[in-house]
Amino acid sequence: MTSDSPPADNQRFEFSIHATDGKARTGTIRMRRGDIRTPAFMPVGTAATVKAMKPEAVRATGADIILGNTYHLMLRPGAERVARLGGLHKFMNWPRPILTDSGGYQVMSLADLRKLTEEGVSFKSHIDGSRHMLKPERSMEIQRLLGSDIVMAFDECPRADRPRDEIAASMELSMRWARRSRDGFDSGGEHAANSALFGIQQGALDEDLRRISAQKLTEIGFDGYAIGGLAVGEGQEAMFATLDFAPGMLPQDRPRYLMGVGKPDDLVGAVERGVDMFDCVLPTRSGRNGQAFTWSGPLNIRNARHAEDTGPLDPRCTCPTCGTYSRAYLHHLNKAGEMLGAMLMTEHNLSFYQQLMAAMREAIAAGTFAAFAARFRADYLQA
Amino acid sequence: MTSDSPPADNQRFEFSIHATDGKARTGTIRMRRGDIRTPAFMPVGTAATVKAMKPEAVRATGADIILGNTYHLMLRPGAERVARLGGLHKFMNWPRPILTDSGGYQVMSLADLRKLTEEGVSFKSHIDGSRHMLKPERSMEIQRLLGSDIVMAFDECPRADRPRDEIAASMELSMRWARRSRDGFDSGGEHAANSALFGIQQGALDEDLRRISAQKLTEIGFDGYAIGGLAVGEGQEAMFATLDFAPGMLPQDRPRYLMGVGKPDDLVGAVERGVDMFDCVLPTRSGRNGQAFTWSGPLNIRNARHAEDTGPLDPRCTCPTCGTYSRAYLHHLNKAGEMLGAMLMTEHNLSFYQQLMAAMREAIAAGTFAAFAARFRADYLQA
Ligand SMILES: [Zn+2]
Ligand SMILES: [Zn+2]
Repeated sequence: MTSDSPPADNQRFEFSIHATDGKARTGTIRMRRGDIRTPAFMPVGTAATVKAMKPEAVRATGADIILGNTYHLMLRPGAERVARLGGLHKFMNWPRPILTDSGGYQVMSLADLRKLTEEGVSFKSHIDGSRHMLKPERSMEIQRLLGSDIVMAFDECPRADRPRDEIAASMELSMRWARRSRDGFDSGGEHAANSALFGIQQGALDEDLRRISAQKLTEIGFDGYAIGGLAVGEGQEAMFATLDFAPGMLPQDRPRYLMGVGKPDDLVGAVERGVDMFDCVLPTRSGRNGQAFTWSGPLNIRNARHAEDTGPLDPRCTCPTCGTYSRAYLHHLNKAGEMLGAMLMTEHNLSFYQQLMAAMREAIAAGTFAAFAARFRADYLQA
Repeated sequence: MTSDSPPADNQRFEFSIHATDGKARTGTIRMRRGDIRTPAFMPVGTAATVKAMKPEAVRATGADIILGNTYHLMLRPGAERVARLGGLHKFMNWPRPILTDSGGYQVMSLADLRKLTEEGVSFKSHIDGSRHMLKPERSMEIQRLLGSDIVMAFDECPRADRPRDEIAASMELSMRWARRSRDGFDSGGEHAANSALFGIQQGALDEDLRRISAQKLTEIGFDGYAIGGLAVGEGQEAMFATLDFAPGMLPQDRPRYLMGVGKPDDLVGAVERGVDMFDCVLPTRSGRNGQAFTWSGPLNIRNARHAEDTGPLDPRCTCPTCGTYSRAYLHHLNKAGEMLGAMLMTEHNLSFYQQLMAAMREAIAAGTFAAFAARFRADYLQA
């Protein structure tokens, strides 16, 4: 399931599409630290660790790239400290590509005493109350200090239910910040020569705003384009309605990254609409909370019906958890609050997500994606 | 470091001593599920898991045998349930020997509304308030249902600071229970034919009581003999004073097991006095709390002096944690409350304990144990 092609030297960023099927695409991003097969799911490694997993186990699930959070890492252990220790890859023992977010989304949702201006966002750390400023230039600097392979532009993400003029003004601000992010990134010397920068489309659910945002980003020019401002509470139907038009506004030959998504059926619907990359805390967070994803839909291992079930979480899953442990054992570990329960459930969920991505890549390559998606939904959304 | 000799079929229990050095001995216990190299340290797997460790990683540290807790397992998931699910080895994926305690010690320290009679101990579960009875016959039945390889006699362990007549009465009760344990175990059919039973010497710090206890146990006859009632708050000096005479009262050709011990320097001092087996939660519990054991003594990874230390926990340690991760990273994980910190620190501590046991076995075989112990103490107790 994992490809062990060696990292390509001097390969900054190259995206090639191998096959398309309807709007769905499958391809490869080549970077110095390794290939990224798309559609790709990126496990979230918030604080320099994919929670409850050793990095070699994350790799064994099939992950080509993981995500790190600028907001968390700048506060603890601190970007300058990570740089002094040799960068994030060495620090956490993940030699393959890392994408870092810009901190823009998390500072607005997690920090205290936020103050948003044209310059950026000043705030107090939710950890120790210390004062900080995040702005495009500082976000680029932090991501450079971390040694990020794919750097995200610094943006602002308003709630989708705000008035249209607020959404528009926020999008315009994010586009001015995108320009400053580009300039900040480009001044990064060796790091800029070796890594990639993605812009982020905003505009919530509004087609005109999404088009304006896409045009402004394309004029600036980025290695890839993220679709921001979705999966923030608008619901799957509204998200899919936006994904019916938003990806097509972005350059066809660049990867499209839907941030913070999502449930397995979200991933299938988004790939169907032309998305290439995803990240989400769901498989890791759910794993710690006793929820397992399976081809037959999600299940909660705490349910008493699993107490003496000798079968695996998912009979089709090829992960180490399903190959070794019964639902009865996982039920016991979860009820007893044992760390091993979180470890084994997380490993299954991340593996399931990667098996789903691999199945989508195969179906696209075979030109059978519509049939795959129909069968997936019939099985997954039963209940 | 690990021996991969296959389990010996039809080998119920055979202890052979390969070398002695002073009172210290090194040998092998052969059992159906695998060999146990002595002196042996048994990681504690309280609730059917060595906390924060996959069983294959526990094995990779060098552990030949682990310990399970009757009290915890009888309450959750329940001994009958474990039996229906195929026994503890299959349930938790540990195919090698398992020693189970009798529940006697933990019921007195953890359960609510305990009532001790000649018959046994009635109590309420600390988990759900349900009522239970533990007595020699039920303890033997539970350990049989779990599928234990080394079963411990059911005993009572008084605090070492009780009056002598109380200690004596408690020891006499434990000896009557040892007889009932022997009878209960022997009526276990196939399980009795395939597993071993250990008696437990009591008598606190009193040499006469220890001698009486040893005589009574030897008359009954057991496969091995534990030294109970130590490491319960009496301090290392009093424990060593008791170990100066207690092991020698037990049959020379049977393994001697010091229950619930201990710190690395406790292990060295006890091996020096003729002990062959140990169990303790210290390496696992400390690992979750940020304490690492090293050849230079214990250290707390939360200490700020480790924040930018690129070195390993212990430069002499051969474990995966020390081979891969810096103190700085472990410091960060611990400060951030990340599960991976507990996982990596536990793996180091269990590996360190097994490296210490292996070093003691080698020194005994080479006839250099006194020099080893002196050098160990000079390094470990510096500070
Ligand atoms: Zn699985
Ligand atoms: Zn180590």
